[in-house]
Amino acid sequence: MNSSSKGKLVVRCFGVSADGFGAGPNQDVNNPMGVDGMALHQWVLPTRTFQKKLFGKDGGTEGPDDDLAKRGFVNIGAWILGRNMFGPARGPWPDDQWKGWWGDEPPYHCDVFVLTHHARPPISMKGGTVFHFVTDGIEAALRRAQEAAGDKDIRLGGGVATIRQYLRAGLVDELHMAISPALLGSGENLLAGTDLVSLGYKCTEHVSTENAMHVVIGKA
Amino acid sequence: MNSSSKGKLVVRCFGVSADGFGAGPNQDVNNPMGVDGMALHQWVLPTRTFQKKLFGKDGGTEGPDDDLAKRGFVNIGAWILGRNMFGPARGPWPDDQWKGWWGDEPPYHCDVFVLTHHARPPISMKGGTVFHFVTDGIEAALRRAQEAAGDKDIRLGGGVATIRQYLRAGLVDELHMAISPALLGSGENLLAGTDLVSLGYKCTEHVSTENAMHVVIGKA
Repeated sequence: MNSSSKGKLVVRCFGVSADGFGAGPNQDVNNPMGVDGMALHQWVLPTRTFQKKLFGKDGGTEGPDDDLAKRGFVNIGAWILGRNMFGPARGPWPDDQWKGWWGDEPPYHCDVFVLTHHARPPISMKGGTVFHFVTDGIEAALRRAQEAAGDKDIRLGGGVATIRQYLRAGLVDELHMAISPALLGSGENLLAGTDLVSLGYKCTEHVSTENAMHVVIGKA
Repeated sequence: MNSSSKGKLVVRCFGVSADGFGAGPNQDVNNPMGVDGMALHQWVLPTRTFQKKLFGKDGGTEGPDDDLAKRGFVNIGAWILGRNMFGPARGPWPDDQWKGWWGDEPPYHCDVFVLTHHARPPISMKGGTVFHFVTDGIEAALRRAQEAAGDKDIRLGGGVATIRQYLRAGLVDELHMAISPALLGSGENLLAGTDLVSLGYKCTEHVSTENAMHVVIGKA
């Protein structure tokens, strides 16, 4: 558990299908979210926050979807990502060419800790993002992220397997799921086999929009 | 599959938690929906339709929640229920005393086919509801319900295990899930292990309210 002087570990804006999947099946370089996985992100793509952060564009929608997208970037001092969220390759790194899905200037602008079984030197990107590769597990990654973040929060970006590990270890302080009115049928189920109530979580906040039902889950 | 001259098999107003459960754990006579399962029905309880149908009261809320509650009773000529939705007892019927959860005048007002492994004579209730006990499986129950319903639809009331059987057999024409911003943690997961996309389903309609996200699933 985090001590109170440290930033919280938060999952924000995590898209889930109506049938419970946080990513589609068969992720590859053309389907970073798995097949049909982009359906989970239709609520956030048009928002003002996302248009600006991801595409550098002005304009976009406002309202609760945008408010929650915006909150996803407030007071974040470091990120943690699973290896599969960083890239499509599995096993040892084939070379040092792959630097994430996000081009030269990723939208993080802080230290990002990537969980992997395969060591690799850190990569400094434009705009202040530094990818660090952590090979000694989820608790070590959290400690390093907390040191980097100071009193700010740490955002756990995903993917599903990584969030599940942190949830089951009781280390997630807050989880915002955006449930989309879409079916994936298969892929990675976020909560299957994880009893959030036994782990001490409850819904602390919710808001529905045309595009999603937003549910925030925190410690009861 | 139903032929086009027959009524559709529909699931309406089926409450599901944000973590995918259609009923809480440990159903008994005091917890017909399982422990905390009533959390799934908070969206429908205050509606005008539910207040009238279940409690005979005037008044109640209007809007999308009520529109969907109302649709649940339109053009329904017969119901199918799983044994556990009819009562808390398991195994052979101890006697003929139990006549459902709904008192002398159940809210069905038509033939209701209860799936069970244990035969029992039909029960005629006030207001036109007749409970029939079907021991030869889900397809036999559907045939009998279709005969009873004529050209009207058949509503599949639940519970979770029964809906899952009909879904996996490809026999459900439409499923309306009302996803509530509540966690159950454990209980009966409606869709775990059922690949709706492979079965040919997709979301055909959705509307969100303060209380639930309504998702209608039908054949693609």
